[in-house]
Parts: sequence; structure tokens; C-alpha cells
Amino acid sequence: MAEGNTKITDRFWTRYRELVRSEMIPYQWKVLNDEIDVRIERERDDAHIPNKKSHALENFRIAAGKHSGHHYGWVFQDSDVYKWLEAAAYSLSEKMDENLKKLADSVVDLIGDAQEEDGYLSTYFTIEEPDRKFRRLRESHELYCAGHLMEAAVAYNRATGNRKVVEIAEKLADCIWRELGPEGRYGFDGHEEVEIGLMKLYQLTGKERYRELSRHFLMIRGEDPDFFEKERQNDPDRKPVIHGMDPLPLRYYQIHKKVVDQDTAEGHAVRLVYLCTAMADVAAACGDEIMLAACRKIWRNIVDRRMYITGGIGSTVHGEAFTFDYDLPNDTMYCETCASVGLVFFAKAMMENEADGEYGDVMERALYNTVLSGTALDGKHFFYVNPLEVNPVSSALDPGKSHVKAVRPEWLGCACCPPNLARLLASVDQYVYTAREDCCFVNLYMSSESCFSMKSGEIRIRQETGYPVSGKIRLQLEKEAGQKLRLGLRIPSWARTFALTVNGEACRAVPEKGFVLLDLQEEKNEILLDLPMKPELWRARADLRSDIGKAAVGRGPLVYCLEEADNGKDLHMLSIKRDPDFAEQEEDGELGHIVAITAAGIRRKTAPVRGGLYGFDDEMREEKEEQRLRFIPYYTWANRGSNEMSVWVRTE
Amino acid sequence: MAEGNTKITDRFWTRYRELVRSEMIPYQWKVLNDEIDVRIERERDDAHIPNKKSHALENFRIAAGKHSGHHYGWVFQDSDVYKWLEAAAYSLSEKMDENLKKLADSVVDLIGDAQEEDGYLSTYFTIEEPDRKFRRLRESHELYCAGHLMEAAVAYNRATGNRKVVEIAEKLADCIWRELGPEGRYGFDGHEEVEIGLMKLYQLTGKERYRELSRHFLMIRGEDPDFFEKERQNDPDRKPVIHGMDPLPLRYYQIHKKVVDQDTAEGHAVRLVYLCTAMADVAAACGDEIMLAACRKIWRNIVDRRMYITGGIGSTVHGEAFTFDYDLPNDTMYCETCASVGLVFFAKAMMENEADGEYGDVMERALYNTVLSGTALDGKHFFYVNPLEVNPVSSALDPGKSHVKAVRPEWLGCACCPPNLARLLASVDQYVYTAREDCCFVNLYMSSESCFSMKSGEIRIRQETGYPVSGKIRLQLEKEAGQKLRLGLRIPSWARTFALTVNGEACRAVPEKGFVLLDLQEEKNEILLDLPMKPELWRARADLRSDIGKAAVGRGPLVYCLEEADNGKDLHMLSIKRDPDFAEQEEDGELGHIVAITAAGIRRKTAPVRGGLYGFDDEMREEKEEQRLRFIPYYTWANRGSNEMSVWVRTE
Repeated sequence: MAEGNTKITDRFWTRYRELVRSEMIPYQWKVLNDEIDVRIERERDDAHIPNKKSHALENFRIAAGKHSGHHYGWVFQDSDVYKWLEAAAYSLSEKMDENLKKLADSVVDLIGDAQEEDGYLSTYFTIEEPDRKFRRLRESHELYCAGHLMEAAVAYNRATGNRKVVEIAEKLADCIWRELGPEGRYGFDGHEEVEIGLMKLYQLTGKERYRELSRHFLMIRGEDPDFFEKERQNDPDRKPVIHGMDPLPLRYYQIHKKVVDQDTAEGHAVRLVYLCTAMADVAAACGDEIMLAACRKIWRNIVDRRMYITGGIGSTVHGEAFTFDYDLPNDTMYCETCASVGLVFFAKAMMENEADGEYGDVMERALYNTVLSGTALDGKHFFYVNPLEVNPVSSALDPGKSHVKAVRPEWLGCACCPPNLARLLASVDQYVYTAREDCCFVNLYMSSESCFSMKSGEIRIRQETGYPVSGKIRLQLEKEAGQKLRLGLRIPSWARTFALTVNGEACRAVPEKGFVLLDLQEEKNEILLDLPMKPELWRARADLRSDIGKAAVGRGPLVYCLEEADNGKDLHMLSIKRDPDFAEQEEDGELGHIVAITAAGIRRKTAPVRGGLYGFDDEMREEKEEQRLRFIPYYTWANRGSNEMSVWVRTE
Repeated sequence: MAEGNTKITDRFWTRYRELVRSEMIPYQWKVLNDEIDVRIERERDDAHIPNKKSHALENFRIAAGKHSGHHYGWVFQDSDVYKWLEAAAYSLSEKMDENLKKLADSVVDLIGDAQEEDGYLSTYFTIEEPDRKFRRLRESHELYCAGHLMEAAVAYNRATGNRKVVEIAEKLADCIWRELGPEGRYGFDGHEEVEIGLMKLYQLTGKERYRELSRHFLMIRGEDPDFFEKERQNDPDRKPVIHGMDPLPLRYYQIHKKVVDQDTAEGHAVRLVYLCTAMADVAAACGDEIMLAACRKIWRNIVDRRMYITGGIGSTVHGEAFTFDYDLPNDTMYCETCASVGLVFFAKAMMENEADGEYGDVMERALYNTVLSGTALDGKHFFYVNPLEVNPVSSALDPGKSHVKAVRPEWLGCACCPPNLARLLASVDQYVYTAREDCCFVNLYMSSESCFSMKSGEIRIRQETGYPVSGKIRLQLEKEAGQKLRLGLRIPSWARTFALTVNGEACRAVPEKGFVLLDLQEEKNEILLDLPMKPELWRARADLRSDIGKAAVGRGPLVYCLEEADNGKDLHMLSIKRDPDFAEQEEDGELGHIVAITAAGIRRKTAPVRGGLYGFDDEMREEKEEQRLRFIPYYTWANRGSNEMSVWVRTE
């Protein structure tokens, strides 16, 4: 990959990145440090009693011997701190803030203090069960947390030059190498993540053993599907490490077969996309075609059969998991924010293997819809689960939907999503381009200024756009005289047409695998791309039982939804006309700067003439009225209190 | 109530009653006696490991000191034996069978041997935890089992004259009176049932203390919502009685408020209808208007807002419970067979308070659809859960639907339904008429011969019908000269019209509260009723989100469904025309003697032109073909292997 950097100047994204800086990072710090009272909600009715506080930093202080007491919270509580540090690092990269840097430096010091002499690092095991270190990998999350530390270390080092954090990460990586490396004991983590962290550490340090260790964990995964069970049998008292972490089916952990033999997306959705990200990273770094082929198969299975129109993944709350092809229920699904964050990682990693506009399409779909839906517009309330259809009464009174919240909680007992979201938003600049050899591909359209050191020389790109409100994009690209450069412009799959001019001349290029490829000759180039940003009626293929007879409204990358606040109660009684006579309303109000869409619809209230629940088809009384339906971008829903929401609407 | 009896001569019901006699009773005996290997299934993925055997009779032998060993199975395992005995009793009433009587007598003796000196009877507590007797009423099911013993005792005494069984039941009832009666400790069972049993014992023996004890349990229920929790706090080691019986919300046990103050159907559906049956029994016996008023409110709530078109109740697997008004999902519901059995009990008990055709309507709806669906046509496989929509792939791969079986298992870990079904089928003769004072109401239409001792004298009724295949009913009623008699003929709510002749003369009576009332003057009367037994298209009121845009097919009391075996895969791609051009096909094949219905429909297979999951509305490729849809009676579904099924079908 070419070295480079991108500075986001975009109105849409800057608002989010400012939220990360001004709200999420300080707010999450206070939560992790138990400084504020926060109403922590259970993920669902049958979840364990939620932590009354995070205690995440306190765990480090206890492990470091500074405070006394017990570990509190999940066995993977440390990762909240690492993800916070990673988000802080990206934020500092963009804009230095000495106070934040001081705070982050102190966190690095604290982590270092909690690290054991041999490099081992996991506050839970250091405090509570030192004799079980690396012995209960199914549930322990030791390597998972290590991976997050490595990601944070690389980001923080790049942002601030801090060396200590890299030393901690390397010392831990070396400890893992000794214990579980190719010459150590057989074992891998129940939750993939260390494989990603090791690849980042490899990219920073150039030390091949980290790449080798990452690949090792991938190659042995699923080789012995009984490994976790054997591990439990070997444990003296065979108890689960921590209450509530009961063994789950092999697929949950993606250990039902070797990873290179897997061709469908199975099990816990976050785990699966983290696995795939690491596989794609390793494939790119090692030129491993077998691993890349497996990535492609799983990608196809997700995109062609197991992904919501919002870019959400995970069809069931049970195991927060994939289920089977075309099973995409709208009101019981999981669609965890973290899973879509991971899908964006996977898409980026695939782009680094091979250029295909579909990777950018999915990245965009997940990012603008499910990822952004993960946070309230205030940056202080978060969704874990991102439904496509909500009735608040169901959420309250149907235990099977207790995980489907109608408003974003302040914090969740298992707090993986808020910091994951923060680190992605803070690093979104890294997703705009994929620059490789003499090619630079534009994945995402957002106003920004970038420079890349390509094989053939330096390039500078200035992007100006009002995306996603407007579909007009202006790219100014400067390169060196005689420098060979191919620019790939992604033509999104939602764009039926597009208009393109290159240095003033209309260009009729046909996209190849989703990209218009321009071999730029001039030193200074101006490219104007006009994408048809307008309302469209979408349908799902008939295999999707839940969406049959229904349509969704989209505009560019944004999926839209109906909310009760705009359309009244009982959204299921509404239908949209096949000729919806769309109208757009640009506004900048309580939902921010959006284009709302109205469409022609009908509200039907039917009831049996004789009363009761059921009546003859020809004895139903029907009140039918024309109603102008108002759709808002999906990511803005649930910002006006608890109310009904629906993405899919029945068609007339 | 007038004394009397009814002998069923009906083709439709005799088949089922013969199945009870020849298959269910012998088969269930073998299961209860661990004589045959039976593949016991878990109710759902997260249910406890199922019992490998029933052990129900062995528990009695151990409690009686005849064998040694431990109690095995659920704490309420005894009730399976009592329900079997009750079913056997009804079967013997109809047709004496000396071998069966001998077997049943021996069961009575065994129960007597297992009973303790003071009358206490519960094999679990006798064997395992004698110091906890009546101390953990939330989970113990001691009174629940006692209630089933009392019901069995009354039935068996009536069938055979056996006195011992009544002595056992009375001894137990007296023990309960001493411990938990109005002068004993405060307490009632977590699962209502003893209140029903006590009323039956009162009706048999005339002893008012049993009626008083039943009313006592009802009156104190919910008075102190914290009672169960206090009981747990007072328990020395505070453990649940038996693994898996975790405390559930107050509503689950109907203890969130006093029962007479309850006006909605809440909690575990079986518990609720058992509670209501007892309340209605007590209301009738005591003329308790307050209790009757509560029954009416809960009845209205069920019938107007919480009942499936199949007469199923219980919208969620979580707590096998009601959820909220109009929440009737078709593919995740519970609709337990036992709950519909209980709804039939409740309807009958209400009819004994006040004549209203609606009670017969609901009785009929539940009986002909969800209750019968509880057994395979072979009488040897049973549903616990009766879905309105099934996709076998979902049942297999979506853990949230693991309780929705696509084929009836041989036996279930919690085996409440098969014997409950058997006892209702074997006693269905008791549901045909409600005879009171000088009125005789016809609730159900089935060929039968009855006699009743009315206040004014004896009557004999002979009913001849081909119901539910035919809607023609011939009633011959003989009474004494000058005897006053009013006959109430239920005109079902599904009958738009009807034709009636009384002694050769056309009668234009208008039904009052669902009954045509005939004051019969002649000694010999012939009444011919012709109900319009023909296919009808039904709709649900629009408040039912799950049924919006859909219709169901019915014929008389029977709800129909589509099965994959007749209509091909992907039933969701089918729709029915609003003008369905119904055709009927009477047949007597693998589904028994039924009228199948065909209707005009369309199959649509749509997919995006560009491939993938989602496409523009105007870029979908649609394969549309006319398809004649074939509907079969709901109760006959899942008799041809695992396949898709749906009651509700989208309309064009």
C-alpha cells in the first residue's frame, strides 16, 4: 500500500468527527473511569445483571497493584480501554489536543504498569485467576484484548510517536508467541481480533513474526473443532471462566471447519467479520491466494444472501449471529453496530487485495446506515442492535424483542459498540482511498485533502462534495510531470447513470468492476463527477420472506425509513404507491442537514363489521385515506423519543 | 347443571376417540412405564436436556417404597400419570375394557401406596426433599398435581365406581386444607389447577369445604404479590426446587394483582386459562358475580385481542405466554396444545354461568383447530407448539424458532400436552350440550345420543350430522308430555345464514346471543338445521401487524392452510386472489375424510435484474404464474413429513 494521509474537510463527516472529539471521547473516558453515573441497560431481558459501572480503568489500577479489590465486569472489559485509546489516537492524528494526549499517555503508563514481567496482559486473569492464563481460550478473550491493544498501540504511536505503547504491545505479542506461537502450545482465541492487531503491528514494525503469528492463528483455527472442549475437559474444575459464558455451537466461533474451507458466513457476526478482515489482511501481505479465495466466497455469501439493505448483518439475537441464506427478519434481527463496523474493515481489507467497486458499495452502505445508526445525533447515546422495524410496545412487552431498543441507551452492560464506532468515525479518513502501485481508487466521496507517495511519485487530491445531500463531486488531482497514474472512480451500484468530465471534457467511460478508470496525463487534473442523488424505490428479491410485497426508499447511499413522529402510529397500516411521486425537502433541523423525502401513500384501517379479530373478506369495514408519507434517513431515526419505525413499507 | 350423559356416534370424533383408546392410552402407558424406547425431543434449543425416559410410574413405586432409587424427571411428573388415568376413565365410561380397568385399578393402588399417612402426595418431595413440602409453592407443583389427581379421581369413580381413588383424593384434599386452608398457612400454587380439581371433588362429594378451599386459593392469589419471593427468602438455602425453574415475572403466575381485579390475559397461557376455568366454576357454584365479572373481562381480552384464528393462545415462547393486545405473530408464537385445551375448559365453564353462543364458537374454534393439531393423524406423535406459519429451515437454523417444530415429535421432555389432549378427546361428549334448568343448549354439532334429567323431566336427544364435512344437522328430541323445554341451537359465528325447520315447518328465528331459542311443545320433535359449510375468505383486523395484507381460508369451524406438499416450496411467494373461485374436493385419503379447497392464486418469483439481494423497483425481473392453491384443514398439517406451512396468505 502507498503511504499517505487524508484530511477530512467534509461537512457531513466533520460533524461526526467533532462529536467523537468533543462528546464521545470525553464521555467514554468518564464512563470507563467511573466518573459519572450512567444508566447502564441490559442488552436484553435475559442478559446478566448489568454492571452498575464500567470499572474498566479501575481493573488496570488493581492489576497494577495501585489499588486493591476485585476485577469487575466482563472478562473482556480491558478492550473498552484499548478501543478508547485507539479512537483518541485517531482524533489526535487529526487535531492535536495536549490535554487529551496527556490523558492518553497516562493510560499507556497505566497499561504498562498492569502488564506482567513476561509481557502477559489481561487484568481479569492477573487479578482473579492467574493459574488459568491462556488455559480457557474459548471464553477468556485474552488474545482478543491483546489484538485491540495492538491496534491502539499502532494508532497511538502513529499519532503521537509514543514508543512505550508499542513496547507494551510487542512485549505482549512476544509473550503470546512463546505461549501459543508455532512452537508453543496449540491454541487460538474464541473471539478473533488478535490476528488483525498482529497484522497492524507487523505493518508498523516490519517484524515478520507478527505476520507469521497472525497467519498461524488463522491456519490452525477449526483444524481441531474439539479444541475448546478438550481445553475445558483439561481444566481442573471445568467451570466457565466467567458466569454467562456458556459454550456455544462450533459455528459461533467459526471453528466448525478450517477457515480456508469456510464458504458461508456463520456464527457470531462480529467474530466472522473480524476473522475475514484478518484473512484478507494476511492474504494481501502474503499473497495467499487460498486465503483470498475463502474471503471471496464468504464475502459473496454475505453480500448475496445475508446482508440487510442497511448493511446490517446478524439475523438473530441468539448468539448475535448469522442464521441461513435469505433469512433477514426486520424486527428480531441483531444487526449489531460492531458487526457493521467489522464489515467496513473487511471491505477495506478486500480492496487492498483487489479493486472492485462492490467493496466500496458495501463499505458505504454499512457506514452511512447501520454504523451511523449506532449513535444518536448527540453522540452520547448508542445502539447495539439496529432494527429495520420497531414497535416500542413489542420491545417492552415481547421478551423475544427485548433486545430491540426503541431509543438509544446511554451505555450498555457489554460496551463494545460505542468505542468501536468512535474509532471507526475517527479514522474514516483511512477509508476514502485505496492507493496501490500506480493506482488510486476512490472508495468514498467526502470533501478532503490527501497526499500519497505512489510508486511513481507524489500525488495530491482535493475532493469537494456536498455528499450525501448532493451527488456532485469535484476532484482536483496533482501529480508529478510524466508520472504514471491511474485513478479509479467508484460508480456506486445505486447510481443508474452518471456524468463525468475530465479536464473539461465529457468522458463516456464504462465502469469496470464498479470503477471508471482514468489514466491521467496532465499534472493538474480536474474531474467532475455527477451522481444521480435522488429518491429511488427499492425491492428485495422474493427469497427474502420478510420483505415480500414491500419496498424501501433510498437516496444515494442512504436508506430511508418511516417514523411514527412523522407518519402517525401503526406504520404497518401504511402502504406506498408504486408510482410514489417522490418529493425532496432539504432541511437543517432537529435531524441535522438532511434531505427528507415524501411519497404518495395510503393508510388503511380495516376491522370486521361484526367486531372482533377476524371477519369475512367482504364484511370488513375499511377506512382508507391518501397519506403523504415522510421518509427520513435511517441513521437519523430514534432521535425524537421512543416511536415506531420501519424501513420496509408495503406497496400498493 | 342437569345430570345426563352423551354417547358419541360421530364419524369424525369416533375416529379420534378410537385413537385415544387404541393408540394414545396404551402408547402413553408404555411411555409412562418406561416400556418402550421413545425419542424424546427438547421443546427448544435452550430447554434442559430432555429426560431419556418418563419414569413417571417408577417415581410412584419409589415413593411407595416398592423400589429404591431417585425421583427422575420434572417435579410435576406425577401429573402425567393422573392425566392418563383421567383419559382412561373417560374411555372406560364410553366403552368398558376389563384389561384397561385392571391396569387403571392397579395405578390407583400404586398412587395410594405412594400417598403418605397424613394424605400428602407428591413423589418428588416424598423421595427427594421431604423437609420442603409445601414450602416452595412457586415451583413445586404439589397442588397442581393434586388438582390433576382430583380430576382423575372424579372421572375414574364416575366411570368405574372405584371408591379408593376418591378416598385418596379426599385424603390429599384434607391434607391441603390443614396445611394451606383458610386456617392454615398462607399459600397457593405457582400453577393453577388444584382449584379446578377441588371443584370437581366438590361436585362429586357435595362437601362444601372443597368448594371453599378452591375459592380460598383464588381469593388470596395476587393479594400479596411478593409471597413467592418471601417463601424463597425463608428457605434455608434459597435454591430453586429443581434445576431450570427460575423465578419468572409476577404476571407469569397471574399474581401481579388479585384475580378478581385482573382484566387482561397475562402470563403463562395454560396457567391463565386454568385460573379462569376455576374462577368460572366457582362463580357458577357460588353465584359469585364479582368473580364472573372478572372472567368476562379476561374472556373479552382473549377473544377480542389475543387469540389466533386457530383458537391458539400464547404469543411468545418466552414464558409460553401472552404478550400484549393484537400481538399475534404467526411464526414465533407458542399456541401450546394445552393452552387451547384449557381455553375449551374455560369456554365450557362460562357456558355453565351464562348462555352465549360465543363460548361455543371459541370452544369449536380451539377444538377443531389447535387442539386437534396437537396430535398426528396416527395418534402417536404430538405437537406442543402449534404455529400458523412454518419454514423447516428456520426451525432448524434460527435458534429463535427452535420451538417451532415442522413435524410432531414422538414425545416431549415436558410431556404435558399428549395426555391433556387425550383426556379432552375422551371426554368431548361432555362439551356437546349445556343443560340447565329447563334449557338445553347445543354447543357442538356431532352425531350423538344423549339423555338429560332436566328440572322438568327427562329428555332424549339424537343428533345426526356429517359435521364438519357437512353442515346439515338433524336433531330428534323427545321429552315428556307437557314438559317445559327450551332448546338453544348455536348458530356459529362463521355461518352467515342458516336454514332451520322445526317439525317440518320452516323457522325464521333470529339468534339471540348466538343461539336460536326454541320452546318445544311436542313430545317428539325433529329439528333440521342447515349451516352453510362452504369455503370463506377471512381477514384479520388491521391491528394485527402479522396478518396485514393477508387472508385465511376457512370452511365452517375449520381453518385451512397451505402446505408445501401441495403447493411447492416458498409459500411466501404465493398470493390468493380476492375473488378466489373456490372449489371443494371431498376425499378420504392420507389426510382422512376431508374437504380440500382449491383457490385461484399467483406465484411470483422476483429478483433484481443485476443480481444480488436488492434492486430498483423498475429493475426487478418477475416470473409470475397462475397457480391453483390447495388448502387443507389446519388440523391435518404435518402428516406428510417436514414441509412449509402457512395459514395466512397474501392477497392480490
